[in-house]
Amino acid sequence: MRNEPLLLTPGPLTTSLTVKQAMLRDWGSWDSDFNQITAAICQQLLAVANAVDTHVCVPMQGSGTFAVEATLATLLSPQSKTLVLMNGAYGQRAARILQGLGHETVLLDMGDYLPPDPEEVALRLAADPQISHVVLIHCETSSGILNPLEAIAAVVAAAGRELIIDSMSAFGALPVDAQQLPFAALISSANKCFEGVPGFGFVLVRKTLLEQCKGRCASLSLDLYDQWHYLQKTGQWRFTPPTHVVAAFYQALREYHAEGGQPGRLARYQRNRDRLVSGMRELGFVTLLDDAWLSPIIITFLSPDDPAFSFSAFYQAMKQRGVLIYPGKLTEVESFRLGCIGQLHDAEINQVLAAVAESCQALALSSPEICLER
Amino acid sequence: MRNEPLLLTPGPLTTSLTVKQAMLRDWGSWDSDFNQITAAICQQLLAVANAVDTHVCVPMQGSGTFAVEATLATLLSPQSKTLVLMNGAYGQRAARILQGLGHETVLLDMGDYLPPDPEEVALRLAADPQISHVVLIHCETSSGILNPLEAIAAVVAAAGRELIIDSMSAFGALPVDAQQLPFAALISSANKCFEGVPGFGFVLVRKTLLEQCKGRCASLSLDLYDQWHYLQKTGQWRFTPPTHVVAAFYQALREYHAEGGQPGRLARYQRNRDRLVSGMRELGFVTLLDDAWLSPIIITFLSPDDPAFSFSAFYQAMKQRGVLIYPGKLTEVESFRLGCIGQLHDAEINQVLAAVAESCQALALSSPEICLER
Ligand SMILES: Cc1ncc(COP(=O)(O)O)c(C=O)c1O
Ligand SMILES: Cc1ncc(COP(=O)(O)O)c(C=O)c1O
Repeated sequence: MRNEPLLLTPGPLTTSLTVKQAMLRDWGSWDSDFNQITAAICQQLLAVANAVDTHVCVPMQGSGTFAVEATLATLLSPQSKTLVLMNGAYGQRAARILQGLGHETVLLDMGDYLPPDPEEVALRLAADPQISHVVLIHCETSSGILNPLEAIAAVVAAAGRELIIDSMSAFGALPVDAQQLPFAALISSANKCFEGVPGFGFVLVRKTLLEQCKGRCASLSLDLYDQWHYLQKTGQWRFTPPTHVVAAFYQALREYHAEGGQPGRLARYQRNRDRLVSGMRELGFVTLLDDAWLSPIIITFLSPDDPAFSFSAFYQAMKQRGVLIYPGKLTEVESFRLGCIGQLHDAEINQVLAAVAESCQALALSSPEICLER
Repeated sequence: MRNEPLLLTPGPLTTSLTVKQAMLRDWGSWDSDFNQITAAICQQLLAVANAVDTHVCVPMQGSGTFAVEATLATLLSPQSKTLVLMNGAYGQRAARILQGLGHETVLLDMGDYLPPDPEEVALRLAADPQISHVVLIHCETSSGILNPLEAIAAVVAAAGRELIIDSMSAFGALPVDAQQLPFAALISSANKCFEGVPGFGFVLVRKTLLEQCKGRCASLSLDLYDQWHYLQKTGQWRFTPPTHVVAAFYQALREYHAEGGQPGRLARYQRNRDRLVSGMRELGFVTLLDDAWLSPIIITFLSPDDPAFSFSAFYQAMKQRGVLIYPGKLTEVESFRLGCIGQLHDAEINQVLAAVAESCQALALSSPEICLER
């Protein structure tokens, strides 16, 4: 076993040693050597989304939520009205940010794990011409559902509204082509599918839109326009960047390209998902979602219906075997989650499945197959 | 010469290899092992300010500015009126944050490098009973001036107002005793005198005050109350923390204590300052400030009055010699800055002074002594 746990959590996740080793030097945040790294990162992220000609990439210090808030606080005018397509915790969070900002917000709430229906979205937009923006969570990490981005983007564009995509946990692995799929902004962060370490997020924003947003954000720290403007003018981040995290991300991008970029990464994550799902099903576990909605990012498993099972005992048993798992985030049923992303290859998935089997025994769920008997 | 430059910048700064090596593993942000690190860090930071019984420590993702904004956005009510004691860029920044938040703000603007006079502050407070809060920059990093914290704190307390201290670049090196020097909040960050890497800030807030601030911050990301409340309840950061940066900070605190804590660190920084100042003066350079106001954090030197001198040429010459310096931030005179903080010991200060002497020659300032002839 490795001397650090495997993270089956969807970011922070297990990163390569070489990504971490890129943090073994100090960088002057004002120096041209560092500025070149920032510029290269932004350019490469735009290229991943085929957005080089239409969008700009703006990094933002802090966790992914900071980048989501910066986007909403900078792009939306006080007259905006935003439809949030909500089916989990991150849709709720976007709505909460909007409410804090005092922007008018309407919700299409699908509960814990149902996808929004594009036709219903089209009807809502037709019925309410005041709705100017739609927020969609690409992969709703709280259940693992992969929402129907392409279909939603098509109806939003057809209705002439702006789409804001929280693709925190999906961008880099799931394909996004800005020339096929119109969006105002796509938000993601360093520590998800690009497999960097946490410390900043970034936003791909349509340039003609961002240009109009000067002075709109009440927050100094989260002003995406200011951040972009300063970066353009000086090559530097406005305030101290997490230099080591940025250097690690640059290395992570190198490894991303070496793996074949988005298609290569998606292939590995899909294989991880398929092996995890079938292995867990063999042990008797049940997925929350039907196969059609299972993302290659993270999977929710229902907790076994056995009084001997508790999440915390299962967590500890797994941890003893070198694997950190994630609690569920559903409001109605007991569950836990396993991530497919990060430096997980066949050997690691095997280790995870073995740890699950042993943990079931250790919990005296008589045998793992107890789950089969439900 | 080392294979990475010495950072004479006041954070990001040169950190020890062991601090950086602490980033060579991944942590689950949800796991108790990581939660214990967060708790230990907060406890130790409170102890440095003798604030364990009266204050709480709340870390905040992002750069130091994010922590300043979080503090102002969470602690001040819409009825507040804040006096900002301004003598440089960071005082200006605090005022700009307050204006963005829509809070009433008055300025005592001392220009680029004069300290605020405690008697004048007392008069301003007496004349305007509406002023509820005073913001002071402990060390105004833009000039390097060490502002008279104790005297200001005394008049603010005597007038029954609340003091908010931006001690970004000073806390950890300059002594602060919360039991002698009353403050509502003190803000600092990981990558200054504690010599960690950048990625988060933290705030020491008086507990009885923070308890009253629920629901006050319009920003979700920057809500200091929420961050504290969640941390207390779960042991976890509200949103993904920069795990590697936090682990590095924990190691940095170990090294801080090993150096003798605040007195030990201050002694080294003072020695760095004294050696830098006298070495630079021998070469003919002139400090902006009188000795009484020179902080052991960063020193502003006036640019030599020689047409052969330009900051960018001097910067490049220094960089070729393995030293990154900092531009000046004064509005009226040309200047540059050298930091005293970070992993700089006698050998590094010698290297810096040798690089300055050589760079003066390389710039064909006929000889370094040219400065003496001004
Ligand atoms: C879809 C989605 N949005 C937003 C976030 C928030 O990111 P952070 O925890 O970095 O603030 C996450 C985190 O997992 C996420 O998966
Ligand atoms: C006194 C002071 N306040 C605020 C800041 C802002 O910190 P950051 O650049 O991390 O946002 C700094 C940075 O040097 C500072 O010295």
